[in-house]
Amino acid sequence: MANRRYAILGTGGIGGYYGGRLAQSGQEVHFLLRSDYETVKKDGLRVDSVGGDFHLFPVHAYADTRDMPVCDIVLVCMKTTGNDRLGEMLPPLLHKKSLVVLIQNGLDMEQELSAALPSVALAAATAFICTFKVGPGHIHHAAYGDLSLAPFQTDATALLPGLVEDLRQAGIGVHLEMDAHLLRWKKLVWNIPYNGLTVALNATTAELTFQPDSRRLVIGLMQEVVAAAACCGAEIPAGFIDHMIDLTEKMTPYAPSMKLDYDAGRPMEIRTMYLNPIEEARRAGFEMTQVQMLADLLLFKQEQRLKRKIDC
Amino acid sequence: MANRRYAILGTGGIGGYYGGRLAQSGQEVHFLLRSDYETVKKDGLRVDSVGGDFHLFPVHAYADTRDMPVCDIVLVCMKTTGNDRLGEMLPPLLHKKSLVVLIQNGLDMEQELSAALPSVALAAATAFICTFKVGPGHIHHAAYGDLSLAPFQTDATALLPGLVEDLRQAGIGVHLEMDAHLLRWKKLVWNIPYNGLTVALNATTAELTFQPDSRRLVIGLMQEVVAAAACCGAEIPAGFIDHMIDLTEKMTPYAPSMKLDYDAGRPMEIRTMYLNPIEEARRAGFEMTQVQMLADLLLFKQEQRLKRKIDC
Repeated sequence: MANRRYAILGTGGIGGYYGGRLAQSGQEVHFLLRSDYETVKKDGLRVDSVGGDFHLFPVHAYADTRDMPVCDIVLVCMKTTGNDRLGEMLPPLLHKKSLVVLIQNGLDMEQELSAALPSVALAAATAFICTFKVGPGHIHHAAYGDLSLAPFQTDATALLPGLVEDLRQAGIGVHLEMDAHLLRWKKLVWNIPYNGLTVALNATTAELTFQPDSRRLVIGLMQEVVAAAACCGAEIPAGFIDHMIDLTEKMTPYAPSMKLDYDAGRPMEIRTMYLNPIEEARRAGFEMTQVQMLADLLLFKQEQRLKRKIDC
Repeated sequence: MANRRYAILGTGGIGGYYGGRLAQSGQEVHFLLRSDYETVKKDGLRVDSVGGDFHLFPVHAYADTRDMPVCDIVLVCMKTTGNDRLGEMLPPLLHKKSLVVLIQNGLDMEQELSAALPSVALAAATAFICTFKVGPGHIHHAAYGDLSLAPFQTDATALLPGLVEDLRQAGIGVHLEMDAHLLRWKKLVWNIPYNGLTVALNATTAELTFQPDSRRLVIGLMQEVVAAAACCGAEIPAGFIDHMIDLTEKMTPYAPSMKLDYDAGRPMEIRTMYLNPIEEARRAGFEMTQVQMLADLLLFKQEQRLKRKIDC
């Protein structure tokens, strides 16, 4: 096994699970934490997983990237709502051949980061997983777990096979793809309808999929995403929508990340998951009418909650 | 004053107010009631109105149209969700020159009724009023009160001036228009965004109008209604949307009828207010994408509430 040093930025459901698996398999993994820093430093990281529970102790835990060592691979597992801080957070962690992988939802995060840090090798990753934090330093991994990876620039291409090897050795299913832009758009086909509608309608993925009116909504939004992607040069294969619906029908009723964020009073990833695709499509001459409408509903709900909080 | 006999079908906020004003001005008015029949028979009808409170007693109250006398003018003030019963309810009330006026929200109610009762003279009416039932036989009229009327067929044209005269004598502002189809579409410009969005977002008209994201939603929906109307041959004048927004900005925060229905657990007027316009536009070659999306959200919410009720 090659000797690669990992940093995990954001130790929630995603970072805690993938970082935990890598550490459990013998990799050197350094975790950045915020609210859970003290707990994890003291008690370690507990992961209850359908693939087997485990407990990491001691954990290389940090509250600031300036205290962390330089790493070979940085997995960014934070919400995209914090991405404006990455330009400052990342440099202390990077050497000339470091690879930064964004395991995040949305579009254009790599473009944005590369504008801030042009010389850094970047890869896009999407996680097909059901995992969340149930308490401080305590992750519950309920289902699935595969990662899809794609290089953002040629610099990243040479660095990805090492990561793929380490992930597979840690028992994680990995799909290596070649087109980061297409990878992001494909993930949006599911994310845009299900994240937004579970919030807007206070519903589960199962309710949305089996009730005829919301199923029409879901499929209408998916079709609009596929059409927008095509205008932006990302050709999503025919049958992909049917495949997504089929997959969701077989899932247990599920609350996507935006629903968890909304219910917990956290900011929602509206910008990267909705406004960025709308904007990219618009530049390509395509108006995402339905997606814009859903985005406006979500923006209103976010604003409304903020106002009502202040009023209390 | 000519001697005209009135029937009011549905003695809620609308029927109680307009019927009450007509009776108070000296007209013979017969009220059909359901749940409030016993109370109104016993205690009369109380109307608290910005234009002056009044109490009607005794009231010609009925629980069945078969017990009512034949009338010259029937004001249908029920929710459109009960319109499938009109074909049976109306005949006992009608003579050869009776006029039936639908003071209702939505589109195509006159076409539907005229298919059931082809020889009856019909008129369309829209009420610009804020009025609701606050208790059994107790109406609260909070603001405005004008009625717009238009004949559905030429038969109705000759009968309308008598109604207009009586309404004005009762202190009600009346606008007589010539095109029932245009009247219905114009009302939808306000009704479609504000009824649906107050339900979907649990918001007031003021919140929707002043928050930028929902204001964009409102205006987008209004533009789609105006475009659909034009395809259906109803030319809504330029500046009408600005006028509606301006009017709403000046209103006190307000819950439209569909919001009141939803909050009270009553069925919503989704069919006449959303599905009929969508269908009419589709026949004319225009897809109301945004309105369809809002309709689907409402259909889901209605279904969801029904299911959750049954589960309890």
